[in-house]
Formats: sequence, C-alpha cells, structure tokens
Amino acid sequence: MRNFDLVIIGTGSANSIPGPEFDHWNIAVVESGLFGGTCLNVGCIPTKMFVYPADIAEAVTTAGPLNLTGPTPTVDWPGLRDRIFGRIDSIEAGGREYRTGDRNPNVTVFAGHGRFTGDKQLTVDLHDGGTAEFTADRVVIGAGSRATVPPFPGLGDRPGEPGENGVVFHTSDTIMRIDDLPASIVIVGGGYIAAEFAHVFASFGTRVTQIARGPHLLGHHDADISVAYTAVARHRYDVRTRTTVTAVEAAPGGGQLVHLDGPDGTDTVQADQLLIATGRTPNGDRLDLDRTGVAMDKAGRIVVDEYQRTGVTDIWALGDVSSHYPLKHVANAEARTVRHNLAHPEKLVATDHRFVPAAVFTHPQIASVGCTQGELVENGQDFVVAQHRYGHIAAGWAREDETGFVKLIADPQSGKLLGAHIMGPEAATVIQPLIQAMSFGQTAAELARGQYWIHPALTEVLENALLALPAPLEYGELDAAEHDGGGVAQLSNQAEPIEV
Amino acid sequence: MRNFDLVIIGTGSANSIPGPEFDHWNIAVVESGLFGGTCLNVGCIPTKMFVYPADIAEAVTTAGPLNLTGPTPTVDWPGLRDRIFGRIDSIEAGGREYRTGDRNPNVTVFAGHGRFTGDKQLTVDLHDGGTAEFTADRVVIGAGSRATVPPFPGLGDRPGEPGENGVVFHTSDTIMRIDDLPASIVIVGGGYIAAEFAHVFASFGTRVTQIARGPHLLGHHDADISVAYTAVARHRYDVRTRTTVTAVEAAPGGGQLVHLDGPDGTDTVQADQLLIATGRTPNGDRLDLDRTGVAMDKAGRIVVDEYQRTGVTDIWALGDVSSHYPLKHVANAEARTVRHNLAHPEKLVATDHRFVPAAVFTHPQIASVGCTQGELVENGQDFVVAQHRYGHIAAGWAREDETGFVKLIADPQSGKLLGAHIMGPEAATVIQPLIQAMSFGQTAAELARGQYWIHPALTEVLENALLALPAPLEYGELDAAEHDGGGVAQLSNQAEPIEV
Repeated sequence: MRNFDLVIIGTGSANSIPGPEFDHWNIAVVESGLFGGTCLNVGCIPTKMFVYPADIAEAVTTAGPLNLTGPTPTVDWPGLRDRIFGRIDSIEAGGREYRTGDRNPNVTVFAGHGRFTGDKQLTVDLHDGGTAEFTADRVVIGAGSRATVPPFPGLGDRPGEPGENGVVFHTSDTIMRIDDLPASIVIVGGGYIAAEFAHVFASFGTRVTQIARGPHLLGHHDADISVAYTAVARHRYDVRTRTTVTAVEAAPGGGQLVHLDGPDGTDTVQADQLLIATGRTPNGDRLDLDRTGVAMDKAGRIVVDEYQRTGVTDIWALGDVSSHYPLKHVANAEARTVRHNLAHPEKLVATDHRFVPAAVFTHPQIASVGCTQGELVENGQDFVVAQHRYGHIAAGWAREDETGFVKLIADPQSGKLLGAHIMGPEAATVIQPLIQAMSFGQTAAELARGQYWIHPALTEVLENALLALPAPLEYGELDAAEHDGGGVAQLSNQAEPIEV
Repeated sequence: MRNFDLVIIGTGSANSIPGPEFDHWNIAVVESGLFGGTCLNVGCIPTKMFVYPADIAEAVTTAGPLNLTGPTPTVDWPGLRDRIFGRIDSIEAGGREYRTGDRNPNVTVFAGHGRFTGDKQLTVDLHDGGTAEFTADRVVIGAGSRATVPPFPGLGDRPGEPGENGVVFHTSDTIMRIDDLPASIVIVGGGYIAAEFAHVFASFGTRVTQIARGPHLLGHHDADISVAYTAVARHRYDVRTRTTVTAVEAAPGGGQLVHLDGPDGTDTVQADQLLIATGRTPNGDRLDLDRTGVAMDKAGRIVVDEYQRTGVTDIWALGDVSSHYPLKHVANAEARTVRHNLAHPEKLVATDHRFVPAAVFTHPQIASVGCTQGELVENGQDFVVAQHRYGHIAAGWAREDETGFVKLIADPQSGKLLGAHIMGPEAATVIQPLIQAMSFGQTAAELARGQYWIHPALTEVLENALLALPAPLEYGELDAAEHDGGGVAQLSNQAEPIEV
C-alpha cells in the first residue's frame, strides 16, 4: 500500500498548505467535489458577486429620498450567472489543473470521496471508478461542511432536481445556477445565508417570503442588530418569524407549495422556487473517523486544540469541519497554523480565535466582532454600551440613512472593547478599525482620539460611538471634560451643530 | 471699551471652544458670514450630500458589466438642493440661535467683519450697521479661508451674479445653490474641489469640461494616484490638462464662453455654467494682523506653533486660517487643542499633525495618509512600495473593478508605513486601519497578520497590499516563507487560486 508523507482531505483552505517547504514530501490531495471549497464555488465569493449588483438595484429602487427617480435596473440573470460562474469555474479548473499538473510533481490528486480505514490509512471512492488506498504519515482534514436539508415532509434529498413528488428545492449549492430570475421564492431559514439570498432576490424584483423559526432574523447576532434587521427586512419583503415548514408539495400550476405553521395559524405560500438555507453541517460524519479515533463534538465538529491538532497524533483539522467559526478568514488562518506546524513540529503556533469578525452582506450590511450583550449578561460580566446612528453623522445625512447604527460594548475597568455590532452602509469595511483595536489591545479612548477620522467619511460613526462610551476616557494629555464636549452630543442634537 | 475674557473670530471649528469649563468667562464670538463655517455651509457636508446621489447615478450608468441595465436615474436638482440646504440652513440658524440665546448667557455674538485695531483690541463692522469695539484677554482666530478667484480677463469679482459684461461665474460658495442642473459646465481647477464637482455634474448627465494647469488632475497626490485618476476622469468627461484660461465672455446665445490656451493651441468652450475651483485663500489677510503682530507665512497662513499659539501671547489660531492641512478633521483637532490650552495654560498640549489623512469623494474615491513617493524621493529617504488592485480581491471581482488600487509605502528598516494612497471603492473608509496603524506605530506585518480581515470584504485589498510589501515581515511566531505564500500571489494569479 502506497504511503504519503501527507494526505490532505479537502481543497478549500487546506489547499494552501502544500507550499515550497514541502516539496520533498509526497502529498495526496483528496477532493470529492469542486476544487477550491465552499467559499470559492458555492459560498462567499459567488454570493457576493450576486450581492453587489443587488445593492445597486436596491439603491436605485430606494433613491427617492435622495431626489433620484428611475426604474429598478433590469438584471440579466443568465448573463450575471454566467459571468460569475465563468470566472469561478475557470478558477476551479485552474486550481485542479495546477495541483494535478507538472508544477506540483510531488502532489497526487484523488478525485473522490475519502474516508478512514485505519489509524492513518484511507480509501478513496474514485469518481471515475475504483478505489485508491493508501497510508499517510500525517493527515490534514479540511473536509468542510455541507448545506443542511431538514426532513420536511415532501422534500427530497437532492437539491436542484425534481423529487418523486415533483417538488424542486434548492440549497446554496444550486440556487445560484438556476436558469431564470424567479418571480417568487420562498426562502427557509433565518440565518445569514438565507438573509443574503433574500436581499439578492428582493433587490432584483423577486417576490420573497422568508421563513424563520425564531422570533427574529439573524438570531445569533446581538439582539439589537437582530431586532433592527428584522424590522428592515419586513419593510422589504414578507418575513414569517416563529414559523415552521410543515410540508412541501408541487403546486398544480407549477412551482412549489410550502405549508407553514406560524403564530397566526397555518398558511400556504406558493412560489416559483424554494430555497432551503437552514444551516450547514460539518462533514466529519462522512469520514469514518471511528476507524482512527478522531473525535467529534455534539455539533459534529472535529475536536481540535489551539494548534489544530486532533486527538490523534499527526492528524490535524481546520476550517468548517472543525472550527467554531465557519468563516473563510478563520479557515485561512487555521490553514496557516497547520502549514506552519507541519513544517515546525518543534515550534507549534496556535490559531488566534480571540477576535473573530463576521459580516452579513445584506441591505443594510451587518458586521460584528466580539461578544454580544446577551453573552456578557449571561456571563455576569460588567460592561458599558454606546450606540451611534449613521443618521447622526454627515455621511449618514448624505445617504438619508434612517436605520444604521454602531453598537459598542466595552469593559468599564480597562476601557477596552468587548464587542462591536454594526448595521449600516459598508458595515463590513467600517468595522475593521474596531477589530484592529481589539486585536492590538487599544482602548476605546485611545482609538477615538489617537488618530484622525476623515471628515465626512462613514468612519465618523465609529469616532462618535467611541466617544459616547461611558468608559474611562483618559488618553494622552486630553482630559475627560473635553471628550464630553466632543462630537457626539452636538452631532446627535442638531440644535448644537458644532463639530460637523 | 468693553473687555472680554475671550474673543473668538469665526464659527467653524472654533465654535466648539465655548464649553462649560468657560461658563465664568465673558466670551465674544465674531462671525462675518454663515454660522458653522465652510465645512457645514459650503464645504464638506453639502458637497457630500450631492456626491452620494451622484455615486448612485454613476453606478447605474456604468452597471452594464454587472449585468444590470437601466437608464441613469433622473435627478430632481431643485429638490436635491432644497433638501440639502433645508437641512443645513436650519442647522446654521440653530447654531446661531444657540450661541445668541439664553443657553449661552456668557456669550455675545457679533455678526459682522472683525479685525484688529491693537494688540488684543478689535472692531467689528456689524452687518446691521455700526461698529462694535472691544478688547480681549485672549483671542482665538478661526477665521477660515475663502474660495480663490484668479483674475481671468472678463471675470467679475462676485460669484453667482452677472458681471458688467454679463459673465456669470460660480465658486463652491454658490454653485450648489443654482436653480437648475446645467446641460454643460466648465470647471476650472485640477484639485479636489474641482474633481468632486466634476464627478457630481458628470454623474447627473451634465456635459463637463475640466480645465487644469498641471499635467494631471489632483497633482498634490502621489503621482500614481494622480495619473490613474486623470485617466479615469478622461473616460468620463472632457479633461484639459496643461491648459490655462485666457479670457471669459458672455456667449451671445446665453451661457459663458471660456477661452483656453493648451498644448494643442487655443480653443473656446461654451457652457451653461462656469465654476472656478482653483483653490482657497486663508482669511488672515483680512484681519489687519499688523495691528497686533500676529505673523503670516508666504502662503498667507497665520504662523502658529504646535500648541496653536501665534507669536503674540494669548492669541491662538486654528483651522484653515493657519493650518497646513485645510481639512475639517484637522481644524476640529486644533480646536480641541486650543480649548484644552485655554483652560490649562500651565499644561499645554500639542496638536498631532503626524498622520493626517484626506479623502476626495470622486468616482473612484481617493484617500491618502502620510508621504507620497515623490516626497520620499525628494528627501532621499529609503522606502519600499507595494500595490494591490481591487480587481484582485473577491470584493473587486464582485464590482468588476478595473481601476482601483492600494499603494503602500513603508520603511524597510522598521517595517512601518510611511504613506498609503488608495483609489477605489470606499477608499475613505478602507484607509482607516492604515491611519490607525501609523498613528499607533504598528508595522505592516503586525497589521497584516495580527488581526482578522473579513472575507470577502473590501478591506482584503489592504491585507494583500500589506503582505505584498517587501518589508521585514516577522510577526509573532509566523515565518517569512508563509507570508510569501499568502494571499497575494494566488489572488493576483488566477492560475493558483488558493486563498480566495
């Protein structure tokens, strides 16, 4: 049986591991699906390529208060889809070719489903028939996650293909490749994936119905964000919260009939398309991990330590298959950790999971880092809170923004930020200085007054929120009285328009 | 003659000085124009309120590559103008009322042109007739700047009103209040004010001709920005560089005839409107400073030290009248310095002018901080440079961005940033983490890998540019080899699409 120095399962972030420092190793790469993983093929990247045109369409549609009038631009859905996947599919093919070809003579690619048959022994059910069996000195598991499909009565098990009963449903794997912009869609799920697709379709003019079990959309976010976002979404399309899907059937005239049970009783919604976006499941359960002793937690994640080590020597895991943060930027960081640790087993490094940000590319955008207020309350931790609205800074005036805000949570003793939660224009970009401050240990007061904030840029919403924090605001030679008289009060109160 | 504890000339940033700590002082506030200064009334704020709708109009007009089609939205110019100035004028009125009214019993407002008649003795030519004369223990000069109008033959001296020859020209003081969106406009000037108005009018469908004396627009920026921006602008409207205005006359059929002399000889352009945006002049020359001994430099700026002190004891200056950085966020910082120093003469603080950012709200947006490459060459300073294009990050793919980039300049010894120059989507927001790093002394390598960058947000263009710097990239436990294999090369080269 052939032995490899290293076997890598999955070509998402794990595919960045084979670098020049491992040119003397024989490496096997096992990939059962598309090269490049979820993010590239069916996740972050294509979704955001749909989101940006949607943002523009939505901006025009709602530009009346900005004294602009014009019809919502028409989206050429097949053109958009083909542009996006024309780009992505060729990157996928290029990535596969690169690893398979002459430039990686020490790498062997196995296209098929790999699973353990022993401690560090694996078999791959090859797509083109047959199996490959081999052993490895080291294994990296980066097998990712898959879209979860709940067992709703009437729902088949293959997205994008009609079931025996004629029902067609989609997941994020298939919805972006449909032939036409649907006139209507039911989106089941209250999380970020459901929210982003709801934004995309609603912006392009599709009639959207979003179904969420919880009381609010984005229920894992800070409650202020979750409540505010749900209110905004309700203005844009039909949002059914505290609602479950009881059954799905094919509609007589075409499309899908979704039966619901909600606070007002039962209801049925008919729509051209049905998207199931209820979450993702780590793929560890498909690897026969019991053959090697790698453990999973109750949520199905492979258990790793801070060095990305599983409980089995020389088996590592990273990304969605093991991480508490199923996010590409975290998977990349974990892959860097594994890459370093493989090369330097005598000098291991840990992945820094202290301040992990995340964004939701909806309208408005959402971004957050650190603790929610609810988590701090639960932990009994002291905190102070400040909010500042986009509508109270000049860049918010320019947008006639009425919903956006920054919420900051800080430790009253140290003055450092514990969490930041933003809903509003460019939130995913606006939040970075806060991530930076938390990561480098700067206090809110240092951050507010230790640098310039360009006027009148969106970042002034941060400056003002930071100054509004009732934290110990000593910095440098400036005194607290001055901060009290800073931009916040005046900007929030147009009767005293001093620092504008 | 009445004596005040403090006289403040100008109600821009200087108007933030009278706080509760000075309630026991008799304070005179002298304002010859609108309350709130340039930024609020004729500067940053109203211009950006025009820019944002222009951004949307431009986004739709150029959305073809995003598979969106639709007409450019129609701007309701009078509605836009009235919305903007309805908001601003009421803030202006509120600010004046606030200082004049009962809530500031220790403040006396003098509406008129103030000037020195002695060391700390002033007279105000009141708008409602008569003069007020008084002395002061302390004077703060925050008298701002004014739009410069060059003596082009045929040009009058009052913007917005027909001259004797029938020529009507505008400056930034008047152009935003015109009655209708012009079908055509000539904009004279190559700096940021001219560039922002050219963007606004071009986006709304006005035929724009921009006249600049220099070889490129935005000539004070880093040459890479200046050259790239000029090329983009040339695609949008008629840009005449190395060109001067030789005369202006009223066109027979209405509008203005502008005579030009450029590289291809002389030419004449006719347009509905003429905007002169050739720069701003500090107002120190209107204060009879020779009566008190306050000095101005050759550029007409009042000379101050780092504590904002003029050469005359207890006379301070701040903002455009004295600053090398005629920017609102700098004027605000200088006002905070003066406010502190007035209250704590025994414990003066200095204004931090080390890392002053600035943005130009054009399309694309531009932002910069620190040194340009040209300045470093001139100073003979060692540096390394890296660029990364928006088009090579996922958020740039989503936008089909073909022009945006980040240019970083760093010290090869310390690894710290010396300058950052960005042209591209949301540049004014994207740049903040770099301002923060420079202000707090973080190295490029620390910045790149010491925090998470949300994928796939715009900020990834910073992460990649930082990693591309050939600086000493040691941080924490990570080694240089890893950085070499980071996001940059792969993202720039679609054949190796690893870290996307």
